[in-house]
Amino acid sequence: MDIHKLEQLLKKVRSGKTSVDQALVQLKSLPFEDLGFSRIDHHRGLRTGFPEVIWGKGKTTRQILTIIKQLREKGHNILVTRLEEKKAKIIQRRVPTCQYHLRSQVLTCLTHPVPLSGKGTILVVTAGTTDIPVAEEAVVTAELMGNHVETLYDVGVAGIHRLLSERKRLETARVLIVVAGMEGALPSVVGGLVDRPVIAVPTSVGYGTSFGGITALLAMLNSCASGVGVVNIDNGFGAGYLASVINRL
Amino acid sequence: MDIHKLEQLLKKVRSGKTSVDQALVQLKSLPFEDLGFSRIDHHRGLRTGFPEVIWGKGKTTRQILTIIKQLREKGHNILVTRLEEKKAKIIQRRVPTCQYHLRSQVLTCLTHPVPLSGKGTILVVTAGTTDIPVAEEAVVTAELMGNHVETLYDVGVAGIHRLLSERKRLETARVLIVVAGMEGALPSVVGGLVDRPVIAVPTSVGYGTSFGGITALLAMLNSCASGVGVVNIDNGFGAGYLASVINRL
Amino acid sequence: MDIHKLEQLLKKVRSGKTSVDQALVQLKSLPFEDLGFSRIDHHRGLRTGFPEVIWGKGKTTRQILTIIKQLREKGHNILVTRLEEKKAKIIQRRVPTCQYHLRSQVLTCLTHPVPLSGKGTILVVTAGTTDIPVAEEAVVTAELMGNHVETLYDVGVAGIHRLLSERKRLETARVLIVVAGMEGALPSVVGGLVDRPVIAVPTSVGYGTSFGGITALLAMLNSCASGVGVVNIDNGFGAGYLASVINRL
Amino acid sequence: MDIHKLEQLLKKVRSGKTSVDQALVQLKSLPFEDLGFSRIDHHRGLRTGFPEVIWGKGKTTRQILTIIKQLREKGHNILVTRLEEKKAKIIQRRVPTCQYHLRSQVLTCLTHPVPLSGKGTILVVTAGTTDIPVAEEAVVTAELMGNHVETLYDVGVAGIHRLLSERKRLETARVLIVVAGMEGALPSVVGGLVDRPVIAVPTSVGYGTSFGGITALLAMLNSCASGVGVVNIDNGFGAGYLASVINRL
Amino acid sequence: MDIHKLEQLLKKVRSGKTSVDQALVQLKSLPFEDLGFSRIDHHRGLRTGFPEVIWGKGKTTRQILTIIKQLREKGHNILVTRLEEKKAKIIQRRVPTCQYHLRSQVLTCLTHPVPLSGKGTILVVTAGTTDIPVAEEAVVTAELMGNHVETLYDVGVAGIHRLLSERKRLETARVLIVVAGMEGALPSVVGGLVDRPVIAVPTSVGYGTSFGGITALLAMLNSCASGVGVVNIDNGFGAGYLASVINRL
Amino acid sequence: MDIHKLEQLLKKVRSGKTSVDQALVQLKSLPFEDLGFSRIDHHRGLRTGFPEVIWGKGKTTRQILTIIKQLREKGHNILVTRLEEKKAKIIQRRVPTCQYHLRSQVLTCLTHPVPLSGKGTILVVTAGTTDIPVAEEAVVTAELMGNHVETLYDVGVAGIHRLLSERKRLETARVLIVVAGMEGALPSVVGGLVDRPVIAVPTSVGYGTSFGGITALLAMLNSCASGVGVVNIDNGFGAGYLASVINRL
Amino acid sequence: MDIHKLEQLLKKVRSGKTSVDQALVQLKSLPFEDLGFSRIDHHRGLRTGFPEVIWGKGKTTRQILTIIKQLREKGHNILVTRLEEKKAKIIQRRVPTCQYHLRSQVLTCLTHPVPLSGKGTILVVTAGTTDIPVAEEAVVTAELMGNHVETLYDVGVAGIHRLLSERKRLETARVLIVVAGMEGALPSVVGGLVDRPVIAVPTSVGYGTSFGGITALLAMLNSCASGVGVVNIDNGFGAGYLASVINRL
Amino acid sequence: MDIHKLEQLLKKVRSGKTSVDQALVQLKSLPFEDLGFSRIDHHRGLRTGFPEVIWGKGKTTRQILTIIKQLREKGHNILVTRLEEKKAKIIQRRVPTCQYHLRSQVLTCLTHPVPLSGKGTILVVTAGTTDIPVAEEAVVTAELMGNHVETLYDVGVAGIHRLLSERKRLETARVLIVVAGMEGALPSVVGGLVDRPVIAVPTSVGYGTSFGGITALLAMLNSCASGVGVVNIDNGFGAGYLASVINRL
Repeated sequence: MDIHKLEQLLKKVRSGKTSVDQALVQLKSLPFEDLGFSRIDHHRGLRTGFPEVIWGKGKTTRQILTIIKQLREKGHNILVTRLEEKKAKIIQRRVPTCQYHLRSQVLTCLTHPVPLSGKGTILVVTAGTTDIPVAEEAVVTAELMGNHVETLYDVGVAGIHRLLSERKRLETARVLIVVAGMEGALPSVVGGLVDRPVIAVPTSVGYGTSFGGITALLAMLNSCASGVGVVNIDNGFGAGYLASVINRL
Repeated sequence: MDIHKLEQLLKKVRSGKTSVDQALVQLKSLPFEDLGFSRIDHHRGLRTGFPEVIWGKGKTTRQILTIIKQLREKGHNILVTRLEEKKAKIIQRRVPTCQYHLRSQVLTCLTHPVPLSGKGTILVVTAGTTDIPVAEEAVVTAELMGNHVETLYDVGVAGIHRLLSERKRLETARVLIVVAGMEGALPSVVGGLVDRPVIAVPTSVGYGTSFGGITALLAMLNSCASGVGVVNIDNGFGAGYLASVINRL
Repeated sequence: MDIHKLEQLLKKVRSGKTSVDQALVQLKSLPFEDLGFSRIDHHRGLRTGFPEVIWGKGKTTRQILTIIKQLREKGHNILVTRLEEKKAKIIQRRVPTCQYHLRSQVLTCLTHPVPLSGKGTILVVTAGTTDIPVAEEAVVTAELMGNHVETLYDVGVAGIHRLLSERKRLETARVLIVVAGMEGALPSVVGGLVDRPVIAVPTSVGYGTSFGGITALLAMLNSCASGVGVVNIDNGFGAGYLASVINRL
Repeated sequence: MDIHKLEQLLKKVRSGKTSVDQALVQLKSLPFEDLGFSRIDHHRGLRTGFPEVIWGKGKTTRQILTIIKQLREKGHNILVTRLEEKKAKIIQRRVPTCQYHLRSQVLTCLTHPVPLSGKGTILVVTAGTTDIPVAEEAVVTAELMGNHVETLYDVGVAGIHRLLSERKRLETARVLIVVAGMEGALPSVVGGLVDRPVIAVPTSVGYGTSFGGITALLAMLNSCASGVGVVNIDNGFGAGYLASVINRL
Repeated sequence: MDIHKLEQLLKKVRSGKTSVDQALVQLKSLPFEDLGFSRIDHHRGLRTGFPEVIWGKGKTTRQILTIIKQLREKGHNILVTRLEEKKAKIIQRRVPTCQYHLRSQVLTCLTHPVPLSGKGTILVVTAGTTDIPVAEEAVVTAELMGNHVETLYDVGVAGIHRLLSERKRLETARVLIVVAGMEGALPSVVGGLVDRPVIAVPTSVGYGTSFGGITALLAMLNSCASGVGVVNIDNGFGAGYLASVINRL
Repeated sequence: MDIHKLEQLLKKVRSGKTSVDQALVQLKSLPFEDLGFSRIDHHRGLRTGFPEVIWGKGKTTRQILTIIKQLREKGHNILVTRLEEKKAKIIQRRVPTCQYHLRSQVLTCLTHPVPLSGKGTILVVTAGTTDIPVAEEAVVTAELMGNHVETLYDVGVAGIHRLLSERKRLETARVLIVVAGMEGALPSVVGGLVDRPVIAVPTSVGYGTSFGGITALLAMLNSCASGVGVVNIDNGFGAGYLASVINRL
Repeated sequence: MDIHKLEQLLKKVRSGKTSVDQALVQLKSLPFEDLGFSRIDHHRGLRTGFPEVIWGKGKTTRQILTIIKQLREKGHNILVTRLEEKKAKIIQRRVPTCQYHLRSQVLTCLTHPVPLSGKGTILVVTAGTTDIPVAEEAVVTAELMGNHVETLYDVGVAGIHRLLSERKRLETARVLIVVAGMEGALPSVVGGLVDRPVIAVPTSVGYGTSFGGITALLAMLNSCASGVGVVNIDNGFGAGYLASVINRL
Repeated sequence: MDIHKLEQLLKKVRSGKTSVDQALVQLKSLPFEDLGFSRIDHHRGLRTGFPEVIWGKGKTTRQILTIIKQLREKGHNILVTRLEEKKAKIIQRRVPTCQYHLRSQVLTCLTHPVPLSGKGTILVVTAGTTDIPVAEEAVVTAELMGNHVETLYDVGVAGIHRLLSERKRLETARVLIVVAGMEGALPSVVGGLVDRPVIAVPTSVGYGTSFGGITALLAMLNSCASGVGVVNIDNGFGAGYLASVINRL
């Protein structure tokens, strides 16, 4: 039942051609799924001011370009994650205002400035330098979602002083994203130092029994520190998104 | 170097017995870890108003009673998790003001009323009725940490109408905890319906390839919905704690 | 918006107090989830003639009795799975018409005879005698769902003649459920002998590297025979249900 | 014992050279495996009208061409799965009537039109767009096996409205194939909405803890919805085949 | 087609009521599986002189007694594996000639002396003393299958001299069974010392990362020594059986 | 203590310079490992007539050539396993008598004819055609170790007649090697049909949950047929070697 | 060849009945393993002053008593690990000088005072209080092996100040044993603070995805700190033994 | 609070401008992390004489060159691990004194001779020749850390004489590193032969169920020999580092 048919029904009620009871019966079985407009309600991106996100992996350059074009026409800011440099360059040639973030393999295309909606600072921390690409994905995501983001890189637990000497920055952040591979211990230490939500991101950095990030993931899920939530391995985007949702509260 | 020695050093500086340079050398190598008072700084429980938490599993009744006694003297509210009913009853006989929550196997002992510090409602959702014990652990934790908590139980995805008919409650919560075993799909659906942080708790409910909650955990980590953070299997406490930290923001 | 409010709205439209356009706006945002009656639509059990199913594990005897009572009042046939004998006996004392199937740990409570809705025979096959409890769960489920069910037990692949000598029975079944533990090879052989759908049920029978049924499950998922669908380990109920759904077609 | 020897034996019985008892003894030990003709009975493809299937992976182009040639001479329709584009092009040059389906990497070679043998519609549903190649393998398979097939793509559970708005199509299908990667939740939701058999196909879409489809597979095996059978990861062919076998009933 | 019908057919051929061609057609499609007697051929136990084996686990005492009685009437020697002492005692009271082997939880019931059919000595070697129960299952099995069996216990690789000082016994065995838990290294060392087949049996002895025998199993499958075949964890019976089959050659 | 020193000691005993007791003391502590000649005893290849085996993977062409040259000078037959075609061609150019087996990636270099030492036929059976490369590795190994080898390919369990029609060949083999990927069911069926040792070889053939051969391996370890020993995934060489050791008995 | 035969041979050499060359030939093939006395050499316990160790798990009280008796007669100190309290009490009644360590389930029986052989202090550190039983097993082992042992318990990484305030003790230890369950992060932090060998012991403390210690084990194997060696889960004994071997250097 | 501010405070104390109590309050809350000099204390490399280590994997050539340049200016010896040959060559062109170790993919750059700090010999043992690259990483590391290192390659347990004939070398080493892939049994045998610490290094050598080194790792963790510590798969560097730390004691 599309909106036109609904209008017809109401007109018949008004004109008395359909009784209230008859209309009730029809509306009771009204399959909401036939309301084409209900989909529009789903475009929470537009409503919330968040950008539209495209998962770049497994899509052709042509497919991505088509989606970007449609979204730009509707005035969306756009975030394409996991996009190879080669594809990004082709897209940039067609849509020159898009910006490619090489380290995090993320493409951003702005149609309007990002309004600041986050209430505090999101601090993104990494254990090592090889965790930075995942961290940068979180940074770009959170910035595009309207947050002030700071970073604190290479403060792994084997040199605990490096971390402790930055304690003030840890304590002034409103939400923390902690990115670590190998033994994934950093979120436990950070979680013990702050009273704010910590989003832990395991990375696939390591070899042998790091099992592509599983060890770090398991360590984070078993953190002896409270206040830690975990996302998928290498999921910088997910961490940036969750942090943004929290930082709006 | 304890505080007494530090006082002595400063007195010697004042009296001129120790030069500033000599004192500097001593203080430069000052091992902060010898400052006994630094530990006091760590008692974030007292400072933040959060209760002190005791992990009951693997501790004897006697050990738990000793800790409870010490904490009560300092005026703490106390939360004992994963405590068998048998031990709880012994403790309650000795500390009658303690209250045991049978379903969630949690003991709470209040020395003062819990001040409301959470800014909105935390909604705890479960997929099935057998997930309720884990959910209740989250509920008790969050309430003891000063939150208004509501529950929405048995709204699993196989009967999607049950969930959708409660959509308003989902949308008015400030933080959501979603508890599910088996295929762990509920956080994805809930995450797609709200714009607030979702904390997903996998439970060990199921059999065969549910692998004691691993399947639900993996599903939650791979959620196609954004804004979802995951905690350990059956970790209702952790979810309640994280939700409370977020709800204070 | 409950049905009463909907009625009010329509009356206002009829009386002209509300314009069609205004009503349209209200109905467009009509949250279907507020329609209490939509839940009724979900009671597919009653509509399809299938019994209502209660997962007995993790529920107290009292809880199960309450649910049975409510469902009986509505005229449902009831199937309680994974119910310990001890609980079953208590229930039977209160509801003497219930019947307990010891091998499969299933309780059935009929309020009316089961109408035959399955169009052909469902044949339940096991590799060994220790697989029979799982098979019986499938048998009871399928019978309660209106099917003619036959069984063929202990025809594992190590003695292939036992199976082949029953080939005629295999070929005359409309749907086959094949239950096997250990190496789980039976569905592949059966699947190669018939042109009908085969539902494979791995069981936890075995030791060591049978890993509680994982080996059988994996073997079934990798079957070189086509036309095989797999359910969870020891999930006789699920197989019986799926076979019933197919046998109605 | 070939057919010639069997004929000799019967002639001897007729002529009285061999007594009935002697013949019985010989026939009792008749090794069925020596009956060359028993193999013919196995060619169920020809008998059932189903196409012959060749697993392309791990076979050389030459091998595949040889098999295609032999099968074409016998009048079979042919389905080659998991065939790289490069090999397909060579084959097409030699057998121009073959058609290559790039997305699903399937080659079909018809010698006669496919008769419609399926009684209803098979609906193939995917959670995301990256699941489509696997879905297409199911589509091509089911069509070649004589079914009317429809598709419903990109209706994952994070945007539940997309799925619900197509509920009518879900309900009118006779058999459903649901294809999903990541958390694999879609079959549970679909299974709760329909009363027809649902074949769940996990895909290797995802990263990190999606473990190449294991997470989706486990979720599907643990579906809280009844009436769901599961096939191997990325096994679109198997799902299409099973759906076809069911749709013939 | 049972033997009676076959006899009728042959009589008709003899009497001319059925032509040879007609009989041929009937016999060509003769489903061997209808020959009830074909099962007899499968009783390889009786034919080969091997005992009949009953897997005791998961069977009731009553079931086992019934099977024992039937087999004894046919003159079989019987081996019941994985039988709890409690059940064994009940059986022994009813069948006093049965002998229970406590360490290996095996029951043997002889109706006739075991003829020696093995051509050489089977040597059963263990790494530790806790591996002995599994080893004894192999010993009892191999003896009941007509072999001369010797044992060499507690010669693990951490004290390599213990093993090397028994090298002569290793070299004179015709078949070796090597039983080890923990790191499962013994078969590699033994395999390097002899030119005879080595059957490796992993045991569940160990803790932590021994994973109930998986570590030992994996080590044995990866043995750098050639001539090693592996059986399931704790499968002393299987090793004894395989060794017996080899020792008959 | 080298042989020269030993000679000196004995001479001193003979001449009376060292008493028997003194010599005893020295010999008691005789570290066998100092006997350089003990290594010679280890060259079981030369003694048994078995070829020398070189694991080609991970060795450079130069390294392999050096080893081949040394072994040829000592008159050994040589087997190089897992050797890439590219390396093989270079080696063949330098040692033209070497023969490369492309399918099994094995190189054989004979210095003398292989004497027939196996007492019966080794039959190598595969489930599918893609298992043949692994089977061929077994064939070449067993032939080079002096056995008559026959093959029976593509007789997987989904078409059980293919296997049963070759039952005579199965029964006349003295040792059987059964090679299968996917669900790995073939050894169970073959093991139920013969009274001879069956060596099961899982292959990495399959996709998804075949897990590179783990599923087939697990199925074989859990075979319900007795008399089955298992080797590592894709370990055709190991199977051929073990079969040869058995066939010499 | 036993010592008697060796004596005979030497006598024949001396008397000239056997030539030096003949004796050489006999001695060259001298199988060292026939030298019964070589075993004595293996009793490194007595030689090194280390106690003899008995693994209590899986041994009967009678077996353990027999071994203790034999070892005591030879003057050994004895360590029995993984011994249940019940068994220990029976043994203590028979051998009253034995001492049972309840927390670590270890029994020690001294026949002579333990000489101090370790050169420095072994410091045993735990993350939590529930890790203490494993730690105590290490303590008892190391003390019985002649070391000065100190402990530092409950200094997990979530409260990093607790650890840092004890830094001096960490730095003055010669060998460190670090015991942790859950996320197993403590060895990484400790390893970054000291320049001495760190032995990491994962414990089975935790729930859900701690997987009985696997998570802690993996984290320790992936430690970003250098100088860390890992032992099996809950293997306090192994850690104490390795630390003792190192501390003697 | 930097050192300058600290000086000011002390001067104020001396001059009486700040009272001792006031100074105490300020110093009590002294955030150690603000002491810039605390980082210097962390440069244990310079202090201990150990080289600085750079993990080459995942770093660009430019990044590595920058770090090398900085460290060289400070006079450090440098070790770059897991560096591809291609990158190494570019670096060598810029810093010609660097030396690349092709087999172990390690680059070493010396600014000063390595002082001998290890007290005894470190012996590096491998099971096979393909384990040598990992072994060499340990060798280079230990040498650069000031140790005398010897090697003993290709002495795997399948030819136990090869190992035993080198027993003297095993016994004279002060620390042993044992490197093995496949079944990983060598550390158990070596550990039983010596009284010195054994560092076990699993390698990814093998195929099928070697699982890239997991099997070897598990075997080593379950070693029945005492005195064995384990490092990550292929972690030659870690083993060399740990051995060096031990050898300094």
